Amino acid sequence: MKSQKKHTYNPYRSCFQTMSANGAAELLRYGKSKAGCISLAQGEGSLPTPAFICDEVHKSLSEGKTFYSFGAGLTELRQEIATYHAKTYGHHIPLNRIAVTSSGTNAVHLALMSILDEGDEVIAVTPIWKNLIGITELAGGRIIDVPMEQSDGKWHLDLEKFFAKVTPHTKAMMIVSPNNPTGWVMSGEDIKTVLEFARARDIWIIADEVYGRTMHDVSKAPSFLDYAEDDDLLYVVNSFSKTWAMTGWRLGWLIGPRDSEDKIRDVILYENMGPPTFTQHAGIVALRHGEDFLQTQKTLWKGNQELVIESLAAFDHISLVKSPAAFYAFFKIDGETDSFALARRLIDEVGVSLAPGGAFGKEFNNYLRLCFAASPEVLSEALHRLKPAFR
Amino acid sequence: MKSQKKHTYNPYRSCFQTMSANGAAELLRYGKSKAGCISLAQGEGSLPTPAFICDEVHKSLSEGKTFYSFGAGLTELRQEIATYHAKTYGHHIPLNRIAVTSSGTNAVHLALMSILDEGDEVIAVTPIWKNLIGITELAGGRIIDVPMEQSDGKWHLDLEKFFAKVTPHTKAMMIVSPNNPTGWVMSGEDIKTVLEFARARDIWIIADEVYGRTMHDVSKAPSFLDYAEDDDLLYVVNSFSKTWAMTGWRLGWLIGPRDSEDKIRDVILYENMGPPTFTQHAGIVALRHGEDFLQTQKTLWKGNQELVIESLAAFDHISLVKSPAAFYAFFKIDGETDSFALARRLIDEVGVSLAPGGAFGKEFNNYLRLCFAASPEVLSEALHRLKPAFR
Repeated sequence: MKSQKKHTYNPYRSCFQTMSANGAAELLRYGKSKAGCISLAQGEGSLPTPAFICDEVHKSLSEGKTFYSFGAGLTELRQEIATYHAKTYGHHIPLNRIAVTSSGTNAVHLALMSILDEGDEVIAVTPIWKNLIGITELAGGRIIDVPMEQSDGKWHLDLEKFFAKVTPHTKAMMIVSPNNPTGWVMSGEDIKTVLEFARARDIWIIADEVYGRTMHDVSKAPSFLDYAEDDDLLYVVNSFSKTWAMTGWRLGWLIGPRDSEDKIRDVILYENMGPPTFTQHAGIVALRHGEDFLQTQKTLWKGNQELVIESLAAFDHISLVKSPAAFYAFFKIDGETDSFALARRLIDEVGVSLAPGGAFGKEFNNYLRLCFAASPEVLSEALHRLKPAFR
Repeated sequence: MKSQKKHTYNPYRSCFQTMSANGAAELLRYGKSKAGCISLAQGEGSLPTPAFICDEVHKSLSEGKTFYSFGAGLTELRQEIATYHAKTYGHHIPLNRIAVTSSGTNAVHLALMSILDEGDEVIAVTPIWKNLIGITELAGGRIIDVPMEQSDGKWHLDLEKFFAKVTPHTKAMMIVSPNNPTGWVMSGEDIKTVLEFARARDIWIIADEVYGRTMHDVSKAPSFLDYAEDDDLLYVVNSFSKTWAMTGWRLGWLIGPRDSEDKIRDVILYENMGPPTFTQHAGIVALRHGEDFLQTQKTLWKGNQELVIESLAAFDHISLVKSPAAFYAFFKIDGETDSFALARRLIDEVGVSLAPGGAFGKEFNNYLRLCFAASPEVLSEALHRLKPAFR
C-alpha cells in the first residue's frame, strides 16, 4: 500500500520536474573526486583570502561579536558599502537601498524572490553561468535566452534581438557585465539604452556586476548605477568573492530601488537572516583596505591570460576572444559538438577539469571555459597536459 | 508620465500584498534603538560563543580554508552531524539525508522551497515564532493555525483538532517541539500518532527541533527521528544557535527523506551555496566538544527560570506555565487585549523590551514572551523594572 503511493505521488515542488539539469555541477564534483586532477572548472582563484581580512574575523570573535545581526546587514557594513561606491564609482547610494547578502548568488536569488510570480519571464543574455538560470527557475520564473555572438575577435550583444524577446510576460532582464564566461563588458552607451528601454516598459533589470572590478587595464567596468535613477526598477548585485578572494565566505550585497527596502528585508528575514555577524565585520576591512590586494590579483590574472592565449594559439581549430575582464578563457573548438563529453574526457585522459560550454547555453556546446586565476605554475602544468588532448 | 506609472503598477511579487505584518520585528528594532533598554525580546542568550569554537575559525582561516565549500555542506561536517545523532539520540542517518544549512531558519525555508507550490496549505501549531509563518508565505504557502491551550498548569495540543484541519490542499504540518514560546514538548506517543496520520495521507511533517537539547531536567526531547522511517515525508530542522550560543553564525542542518537529497542540494545551490567554509569547520568542534558548555547554559537557564517564576508569582493577574524546555517565560496577563501596545509601553516606560504574544498568534494577544537566557544580574534588573508596570 505504502510503496504503491510512493510511485504514484510526487511530494516535491512541481518546478523540479521542469528544472533544467546542471551537468556542470555534476562534472565539477567528478573532477574533484579524481586524485591529481587540476580543476580550472570553478570560478575561483588559488589565492586564499588575505590575512588582513581574516584577522578581522579573529578580532570580532574575540570581542564576542557572535550575536544576531540585523536582517539587511550591519549598519556599519552598509555604511562602508556606500562609502566604497562613492569612492570607487562616484555613486551616492542611501543606506536604505543597500542590503548585505549571503553571497552574490544569494543577492540574485533575493532580488528575484522579491519580484517574480509563477510563470514570469526573465530575458537573459547568454552564455550565462548555469546557476543564474537555476535561481530563476527556483523562483518560479522562465528564462528566455538571447545568445551573444563571437565575430571579428569580439563578443557582441545585438540589443535589437534582446529587446525583441520582450512579451507581456517579461518581468526582468538579466545582464552579467563583465560577463562570466566571455569577459564581455557592456558599454555605458548600451547600459543607457537598456535602462531607457526597461524604464519605459516597467521591466526590471538584474545587473550582476560581481566582476566589475576585474577589468585588466582599467579600474572598473561601467555600472548600471552610473546611469540609473533612484527609482528605476533595477537591482545591482555585487560580491566580495572575486574582488577579494572570498569565495568561501558567502558575502555579497544588493542595491535596489528606494521602495525595495521592506521587501528585501522581509525576504532576508524569512530566508536566512543574513550572513554571520563576524564575517560582516571582515567585509568592512575588505572594502576599506582591499585595493592593493585586488591589484596583486589583477597582475596575476593578466600574466595568466597571456599564458593561456599563447598556449591555445598553437591550435588552428581553437579560437579565443581576448577578454578585457574577468579570469576566464571561453574558447571555441571547431568541430566539437558535445562539450560535456569533452570535459569528462579531459578529466579522465589528461587530468584537467574545465567547465563545458554547453552549461552556459545550448549554442555554446562547442566551447570550454578555463578559469585562469590559478597560480602560474599550476596553470602551466594544466596547459601542458591539455596540449595532446587538443592536438 | 513616469510618476503616474509608479502609482498604478506594482512591480513586486504578489505575495507581499497578502503577507502578514511582522510587528514584533518592528518592536525589536524599536527596543534596540533605545539607550539603556534591556532587551529580553529576542531568542538568544547573553553568553558569547565559547572560545573553543571560535578558535577553530581562526585555525581554519590560518590554514587557508577560504574557498568554496560543497552545496550540501562539507562532508566532514555532515559526517560529524551523523555521529552526533548516533551518539545523542541513537539515530543512524546516512550522509545523503543530511544537508548543512545557513541557520535553522534557512533549513525551514529550504525544506518548504522544496515542497510547496503556490497555495499549498501548511497546518501549524500556535503559538509559533512569527518568522515561521513568514517563511511559509514567502514560499507560496498558506498557514492554517491550530492553537494550543493553557489549562491545569500545562500547555495542551488537541490532536483531534489538529488533524481536523486537513484538507485536500494540505501539504505539510509544522511542529516546533520543544516549542518557542511555550516550552511545550510533544510526547513520543503523540509524535508516533502524528507520523502515522501523515504517512497514511502523504502529508509532509516539518519538525523544528532547534530547542531539542534545551530540556531542563533531561538530556534531550523526543525527536521525530526516534520514530520515523527513512522514507517518511519528514524534514527535521536543527541549528547550532541555541545549543552552543551561535545565533550570529547562521549555521544549522536539515535531515530529509532519502529521495530529498538532489532537491535540497539544488535549492541550496540556487539560493546561497551553503554557509562559509570555515564556520562549517567550527561546527564540527561544537558538535564534538560542546556538551560541557551546553550544561553550563542549562544550569544558567534553570536558575533564571526560578527567578522569573518567583518574580511573576507576585501578580495575581499573571499566569505562567513552568515549561520543561527552552528559555522563555510565555505568560498570560488577565484583562490585557493588546500585547503590541503593552510591549511598546514597557520599552518606553520601564526600559524593558519583551516580545508581544500577539506576534505568536492572534489568540495570544494577552501574552508576553520573556527570554530568560540573560545573565542573572541583567535578568534581575529587568524583573525589578517590570514590577511597577505589572502592578
